[in-house]
Amino acid sequence: MKIRLFTPGPVEIPVRILRALSAVPPHHRTDVFRDTLRRVTRELQWVHGTEGEVFLLSASGTGGMEACVVNLMSPGDKALVPTAGKFGDRWASILKAYGVAHETIAFDWGTAIDPAAIQKALEQDPSIKAVFTTHSETSTGAVHDLEAIAKITRPRDVMLIVDGITSVGVHALPQDKWGVDVVVCGSQKGMMIPPGIATVSLAPWRASAIEGQKLPRFYWDLTKARKSFPNGETAFTPPVSLVLALEEALTMMKEEGLEPMYVRHRRIAHAVWAGAKALGFKLFSTSPSHSVTSLVPPEGVDASAVVKRLREVHGIYVAGGQDQLKGKIFRIGHMGAYDLADVHVIIGALEECVAALGKPANAGTIAAATAVREAWQTA
Amino acid sequence: MKIRLFTPGPVEIPVRILRALSAVPPHHRTDVFRDTLRRVTRELQWVHGTEGEVFLLSASGTGGMEACVVNLMSPGDKALVPTAGKFGDRWASILKAYGVAHETIAFDWGTAIDPAAIQKALEQDPSIKAVFTTHSETSTGAVHDLEAIAKITRPRDVMLIVDGITSVGVHALPQDKWGVDVVVCGSQKGMMIPPGIATVSLAPWRASAIEGQKLPRFYWDLTKARKSFPNGETAFTPPVSLVLALEEALTMMKEEGLEPMYVRHRRIAHAVWAGAKALGFKLFSTSPSHSVTSLVPPEGVDASAVVKRLREVHGIYVAGGQDQLKGKIFRIGHMGAYDLADVHVIIGALEECVAALGKPANAGTIAAATAVREAWQTA
Repeated sequence: MKIRLFTPGPVEIPVRILRALSAVPPHHRTDVFRDTLRRVTRELQWVHGTEGEVFLLSASGTGGMEACVVNLMSPGDKALVPTAGKFGDRWASILKAYGVAHETIAFDWGTAIDPAAIQKALEQDPSIKAVFTTHSETSTGAVHDLEAIAKITRPRDVMLIVDGITSVGVHALPQDKWGVDVVVCGSQKGMMIPPGIATVSLAPWRASAIEGQKLPRFYWDLTKARKSFPNGETAFTPPVSLVLALEEALTMMKEEGLEPMYVRHRRIAHAVWAGAKALGFKLFSTSPSHSVTSLVPPEGVDASAVVKRLREVHGIYVAGGQDQLKGKIFRIGHMGAYDLADVHVIIGALEECVAALGKPANAGTIAAATAVREAWQTA
Repeated sequence: MKIRLFTPGPVEIPVRILRALSAVPPHHRTDVFRDTLRRVTRELQWVHGTEGEVFLLSASGTGGMEACVVNLMSPGDKALVPTAGKFGDRWASILKAYGVAHETIAFDWGTAIDPAAIQKALEQDPSIKAVFTTHSETSTGAVHDLEAIAKITRPRDVMLIVDGITSVGVHALPQDKWGVDVVVCGSQKGMMIPPGIATVSLAPWRASAIEGQKLPRFYWDLTKARKSFPNGETAFTPPVSLVLALEEALTMMKEEGLEPMYVRHRRIAHAVWAGAKALGFKLFSTSPSHSVTSLVPPEGVDASAVVKRLREVHGIYVAGGQDQLKGKIFRIGHMGAYDLADVHVIIGALEECVAALGKPANAGTIAAATAVREAWQTA
């Protein structure tokens, strides 16, 4: 059976990138690799829309999040964590592990974080130094209004540190223009390569923020990374093969262009929503992201049964709900190298599942086909 | 020009492993991948000679070292760091970053750590809870007598935590038999795959040592890894492509067998030493490792010039000296998928360099050829 990943990361890896992975990698202390690292960093700046530094770590995305905490906070500092899902909560867990005082504002899972609540919290407690939050919440498929949040933090000189792991490359996130201080990204989502690289981009006006902080840090110490970069090196041995893969991914992104990439993801998401709704599914999120669609099945159809049938009958991998959403929703990833043709694939399979699980219908493929046709006609 | 890596890691990657890297990886939350992770873990236990847990981290080797510190120590604990090189010193740097009290016993770079000095230190200070040290010191090419060190620590119930990054797969290191409590390994050395995986193996009698420790830990928290493993999962997204590569590497190691692998590395090392000595080079280390040979050039020949000429004329990459050894030595890596034929390659190139740099001789290739021939005849 042909296997297709519609997972919320790791995602399908384009053949061009698989080939880059199998290339004989140069040693990392050679000019060839130094040039690669510099080029990759430059193009990551382009993706992030920042003139600031982008640090590349050998780690999963969570490692990048931890690097933010230990490089930007000190004992005695206070943080604000607006969250509406598992990955928003992770910021609080990391801050807690390091004993950093923080206030959590929890929103219902599936909803968008309300920027006004952040404003209120900052007004009530001027000692808050940083806001740790999420752009696209992978556990719920919601996207948060980061631009509005940055409009609150930036004028107050409060740091805004964002998990952009499932948004970078999918939703526009022009860091410097919006005034976002720090963005963390992982490699296995919009960047289309296997997991193993985390990046931290630091807005130019925050260059000094990583200096002199007092939480324990060694592997994550970005001041070490800063010292090594002028030589084209990372502080510790980089995952060379993944860097070559990332170089190829960035070349693909350059070829497409940022704006067309965002348009493509928006079109795919809207067509998936149209098809799924026509089949009786409901969007779980009231602020749906273009990277992950979380669906609540029609009455009488079990979310876990859909996940199982997609896998066993169709060879399609999606993800179930996590934690409190287990068994209630499932999540379709469509970030990275997906196109409108893939919408037919996933909606066609969903339609078969719904029919097999007791709700015959062919409204989905018709609606999806219509939505795809219309998507081709919209900008 | 054909490029050949004789670097002290990352090392040449066998074609079989490059192919595994380019395979379409399964999603990590699938039974296929869970089986792979369990199999890889089982075979890592075989390589380490332990019945204990082996934790797999998405990180470079230094990340694995940091994981040891934060999972095994608490504020108020005291550590001993016997060191004779840059990577031994790194343990002290990490302990320092976390504010853990430690005593360093520094030996001359290039020499072996004296187990008697460890014994003396432990006798003088019974509050020492753990010894952090190195098996094969990559910066000097020295191997330390770990078996003797374990004979001192184990009866005293002092933890012995070892950086085996350039020894695992090269020198015998039967963890349970010798009584070594913890071994850290990286992927880009004896394991033959690209960098990006670090492992931490915990001897069965130390299973409880990672519980209840009080240093801040989140990404490195091995108790989280322990909770996930029964489900065939890692605590955070694993570097799937590298895990597939590791699986192939372990298959290759199984095919060869541990003992033949150690014999092969010993033969290669001895033949390299014989050839290099005949050319007028001196071994820098008085206790040379089978993974990395550090050489001092003959009088009048500059170490950096040798490194440069090997690269520019021969396409051969070796490494220069680090820190205080910069310009004084260079280091040849021969760990992983190397064989005796490679000895002719490196010694032939070294002979050309020595001749070109002012010391004509052909004694090296003759001596190397003799040594290689003899090596084939020894067990």
